[in-house]
Amino acid sequence: MSLNDTHLNRQLDLEEIGREMFELVTELFPLCRSITGDGNRATLRRLKRYIPLTLHEVPSGTKVFDWTVPLEWNVRDAFIKNARGERIVDFRQSNLHVVNYSIPIHQKMSLTELKPHLVTLPEHPDWIPYRTTYYKPTWGFCLTHRRFLELSEGEYEVCIDSSLEDGHLTYGEYYLSGEIPDEILISTHICHPSLANDALSGITVAAFLAKRIASLPRRYSYRFLFIPATIGAITWLCLNESKVSQIRHGLVLTGLGDTKPLSYKRSRQGEAEIDRVAVHVLQQLQQDAKILDFSPYGYDERQFCSPGFNLPVGRLSRAIHGTFPEYHTSADNLAFVRPHSLAKSLSICLDILWMLEQNRAYLNMNPKCEPQLGSRGLYRLTGGLSSDPELAQLAVLWVLNLSDGDQTLLDIAERSKLSFDLMLRAANALEECGLLERRAHGQNSGRAFASGPTKADE
Amino acid sequence: MSLNDTHLNRQLDLEEIGREMFELVTELFPLCRSITGDGNRATLRRLKRYIPLTLHEVPSGTKVFDWTVPLEWNVRDAFIKNARGERIVDFRQSNLHVVNYSIPIHQKMSLTELKPHLVTLPEHPDWIPYRTTYYKPTWGFCLTHRRFLELSEGEYEVCIDSSLEDGHLTYGEYYLSGEIPDEILISTHICHPSLANDALSGITVAAFLAKRIASLPRRYSYRFLFIPATIGAITWLCLNESKVSQIRHGLVLTGLGDTKPLSYKRSRQGEAEIDRVAVHVLQQLQQDAKILDFSPYGYDERQFCSPGFNLPVGRLSRAIHGTFPEYHTSADNLAFVRPHSLAKSLSICLDILWMLEQNRAYLNMNPKCEPQLGSRGLYRLTGGLSSDPELAQLAVLWVLNLSDGDQTLLDIAERSKLSFDLMLRAANALEECGLLERRAHGQNSGRAFASGPTKADE
Amino acid sequence: MSLNDTHLNRQLDLEEIGREMFELVTELFPLCRSITGDGNRATLRRLKRYIPLTLHEVPSGTKVFDWTVPLEWNVRDAFIKNARGERIVDFRQSNLHVVNYSIPIHQKMSLTELKPHLVTLPEHPDWIPYRTTYYKPTWGFCLTHRRFLELSEGEYEVCIDSSLEDGHLTYGEYYLSGEIPDEILISTHICHPSLANDALSGITVAAFLAKRIASLPRRYSYRFLFIPATIGAITWLCLNESKVSQIRHGLVLTGLGDTKPLSYKRSRQGEAEIDRVAVHVLQQLQQDAKILDFSPYGYDERQFCSPGFNLPVGRLSRAIHGTFPEYHTSADNLAFVRPHSLAKSLSICLDILWMLEQNRAYLNMNPKCEPQLGSRGLYRLTGGLSSDPELAQLAVLWVLNLSDGDQTLLDIAERSKLSFDLMLRAANALEECGLLERRAHGQNSGRAFASGPTKADE
Repeated sequence: MSLNDTHLNRQLDLEEIGREMFELVTELFPLCRSITGDGNRATLRRLKRYIPLTLHEVPSGTKVFDWTVPLEWNVRDAFIKNARGERIVDFRQSNLHVVNYSIPIHQKMSLTELKPHLVTLPEHPDWIPYRTTYYKPTWGFCLTHRRFLELSEGEYEVCIDSSLEDGHLTYGEYYLSGEIPDEILISTHICHPSLANDALSGITVAAFLAKRIASLPRRYSYRFLFIPATIGAITWLCLNESKVSQIRHGLVLTGLGDTKPLSYKRSRQGEAEIDRVAVHVLQQLQQDAKILDFSPYGYDERQFCSPGFNLPVGRLSRAIHGTFPEYHTSADNLAFVRPHSLAKSLSICLDILWMLEQNRAYLNMNPKCEPQLGSRGLYRLTGGLSSDPELAQLAVLWVLNLSDGDQTLLDIAERSKLSFDLMLRAANALEECGLLERRAHGQNSGRAFASGPTKADE
Repeated sequence: MSLNDTHLNRQLDLEEIGREMFELVTELFPLCRSITGDGNRATLRRLKRYIPLTLHEVPSGTKVFDWTVPLEWNVRDAFIKNARGERIVDFRQSNLHVVNYSIPIHQKMSLTELKPHLVTLPEHPDWIPYRTTYYKPTWGFCLTHRRFLELSEGEYEVCIDSSLEDGHLTYGEYYLSGEIPDEILISTHICHPSLANDALSGITVAAFLAKRIASLPRRYSYRFLFIPATIGAITWLCLNESKVSQIRHGLVLTGLGDTKPLSYKRSRQGEAEIDRVAVHVLQQLQQDAKILDFSPYGYDERQFCSPGFNLPVGRLSRAIHGTFPEYHTSADNLAFVRPHSLAKSLSICLDILWMLEQNRAYLNMNPKCEPQLGSRGLYRLTGGLSSDPELAQLAVLWVLNLSDGDQTLLDIAERSKLSFDLMLRAANALEECGLLERRAHGQNSGRAFASGPTKADE
Repeated sequence: MSLNDTHLNRQLDLEEIGREMFELVTELFPLCRSITGDGNRATLRRLKRYIPLTLHEVPSGTKVFDWTVPLEWNVRDAFIKNARGERIVDFRQSNLHVVNYSIPIHQKMSLTELKPHLVTLPEHPDWIPYRTTYYKPTWGFCLTHRRFLELSEGEYEVCIDSSLEDGHLTYGEYYLSGEIPDEILISTHICHPSLANDALSGITVAAFLAKRIASLPRRYSYRFLFIPATIGAITWLCLNESKVSQIRHGLVLTGLGDTKPLSYKRSRQGEAEIDRVAVHVLQQLQQDAKILDFSPYGYDERQFCSPGFNLPVGRLSRAIHGTFPEYHTSADNLAFVRPHSLAKSLSICLDILWMLEQNRAYLNMNPKCEPQLGSRGLYRLTGGLSSDPELAQLAVLWVLNLSDGDQTLLDIAERSKLSFDLMLRAANALEECGLLERRAHGQNSGRAFASGPTKADE
């Protein structure tokens, strides 16, 4: 049974929303992002069309744990001209041509002098690699190997019209208060320039997710972060340390637009509720979803799961960084990202959040022997649980049997090997009959996500 | 190694006892049982020939947890006559023809009016289904699909000469006190009419088990319940709540006469001593015995394992309810039950109880290094442990090594992957040498089941 | 990656040291050892050429737990002469011919009288079995089955010129103090006569190991025991009970000279540090190394792991006692033992001890988010970690992520599925940068095994 036909997603038109999401990716694609700079500001400002994002500016030189916020980097133009004055490598054609955070340079040099500053991918001669030099003040160009092989001896004019100046690190934050102050953190990185999947898909899914959550009643509070990878996560954690204790669950979103099956990487805790929920949702999909153990390598889960924080933050992706050839190359372009993949990723995120919202423990109010279900009209009530009446009855019996006030619906789903969805519907029917009482998890009105969700695109 | 050649069963003549058991099934078969009524009383009274059962009568209207003891149902006659006055469906031929707990009716009607009250099994056209309507006051007939297809238009005389009146729910109980007040509960349901395996096999195994246990010294006290399913278990638990805390282990017995391999369904606790013992015994049989995880669907383990009680009660069966076509049909008849299966089921029950009786922890009195087994004559003593002297010595070493006063013989059998039987004989030999001291488990004279057991049929 | 290329073994010339080890085996081979006697003294005295062993003499009659130190046994000569006065069985040809601990006898007898005292191996007609009669005062001869079949009727002169007198049980002990009083125990049995693998290989590996450890700085203290099996271990444990609490890890060494893959038998604790370290080392070898669960049968781990001590002592062997035909026969001779196997076994022991020495927990001094590795020169430092820079970086990240002051490098190696060796090198680099602080494990100067180890044979 698919969770997609229900809940939050009931009214999600995957085709329409996929088209909208892809438009946002397309629009953001040309901007030259980095860990600082105007490209990031422009990116975040465009998201304001979807959600009222707050932009934070952290000055260069700010100490954040073991790190320092770097000088702000901006680049206006960059090229390599051959002896005939032709731009043979041109930043205006692709911002990947400039090694990100290159220091400014403008001089003429021989091919021999130039070569150590050139990066290519011989195994993919038509692709431009993506490289950075954030903390080592140097410069470089990335180009296709085919173009590289065409370079003849002679003089070249090399120009990177960049600036590295006191400025700011910019990040976006969007906080949605819920019934309880306990938070779900959604974090995505914004520091990649024209890479469609690695950065823009995550940004897009997070923005659409935030927009949808904002329109719904919710138990949890939510915090969405749009931050440069590593230094951004470190900066946020350092400047917001007092807020960290509110984070109950978290997801890092990245690489969600390609056509590979979804993959979930467990948090350092390994069996946190977010881990179990994500695993349950992905396993229901039955489409080769991958579950990965935690490892300290990856995206910003590295920082959220560092031992001093050890937050229950997992990562949702499709293709896994470093395991596919297009990773960190110009082949991670708009053709690499599909509207349907974006929409489906959004839908899975909603499934996960919906399950977190709904998962709770109940107390069986008639714990000694089974209640008389027939006289309570429960057989009628459970009619809607499943098209299979035996399955519906089994679900009711499981929920009654294990609802000791301690085990949650997810615990019961895991033990019974039935779906969480079925457990929830059984619990709702039983609660309506007065046979179950929900246990508090903070304050909880029970309205979370229950009223008919509205279209995501309204 | 089979446990059957030893212990309790040493003098059990499976062929003779199987014959006797089958006679009881045959004798009880025609009686019209239900959750209340004279058929139940007659059934229980016949068991008195084997064991001094006490009959309890609980008045209709008694509140038992969420339930109420229903009106007592009795039926004297029932039929459908065709226009020629022929009984085309006749209760006197099979009590399955009447939907159990049908309200009385006597009137003429057309086939169209009659049809909604008829139940058949199109996929097994020669079998009569078994149906009940305990808590919904209606009436109906069950018949073969072949007979149903022969029904022509015309007037039918329909009669169910039943009564639903204030009366009693009847159940049988047999308590055997042992050395300690801790109890082993054996429960079987009596509410099925002419179904040979589903009810009568359980009744018969429980009765013969009780008779045999009564003739033997025993450590535990035993309580045997012969009760209507669901309402009977609920009634007993409600009226005997103060006794529940004495129950240390329990078995629900049902469906033990067919030719399928034995199956054990774990208690809700999952790894209770009864669960581990039953699994150990069944795995030794090596005949495709099935071990099932707990599920809240099934027989009266549903009530004993409800969260307010959570008793360590498992279920022993052969064919599993709902998974074989004869289930709840007239094909569950005397031909479906075999003398040898009944006797073998009894034998396995005795093995399980014997292991519960014998399982205990010992304390190694010479825990520092191995004792000198040779000088203590232990090699001579262990001669009888096994035909394989190396295995005998290994058994002795395992029991010595792990007998820390906490681990039981079953723990040691599981870790060593040797049989419980061998562990026990090693422990007995070591105890005789003064190298082990048994740990108290309540009071324990050590005589339990140890003196030569007598024939079951004396 | 092999651990053998590093650490302790870096300068171990396997070929040369194998030759030396084999020389010692060869030299010790002819001596007639038992659980007491001059053969044991001679064996231990020759070991003094390698290590300053202390010989302990425990008088016959000393009570040791459930046992008593037996009379001392020595044998000068033994034979069976045929009617022509020819020695057809001759102790001077092989000390296996005499059942070990045979009482003295000198008389003439018929073949019929003699036969009950003869032991042969019909399935290996050219091998002499090895038998003992330590605690049953009788006598016997072991001979090849081929010779046995040649025996004709007639008178035989039978002589065992042995003595069983008040004397001593002799064992060797070598204690090496380390930085902390916590001990690693290495124990090997010395009670077998001319059996090359079963006894002499263990003695030789233990002696060479002791010699090498003595030449190196070390954190732990070490105690090497060269003792007769069973009664020797029991005697040592009884007379040194106050020292037992210092033992942190232990290994019984035996059967380490044959060509079978290495096998490690877990301690009774099962998951003690020595168990996990040995398993990690053996699994890195990837040469069919076997890991065996604890069982109370075997060598002196039986005593060290008796429930009153329950020490973390495992056993390292190659071929497993009782599972190969040469076991306890004259076929366990010098040809059964190979120089390379001896040397490689020594090398593996050093790997295990090295890992025990190095295994400790660290505390990440920058636990909130990752430290900035680049600015700290760590990328340079980690250059030497591995030829694969990504693997080196991953190792650094794992060590940082899990170093919470509680998890040891072995824990981190197990979770990350990377080698201990790599974890240690990463920890050393991180410690040098001030990013990790080692947790005390007793006192620990950090010099253990760290300075360049010297050649074993210097």
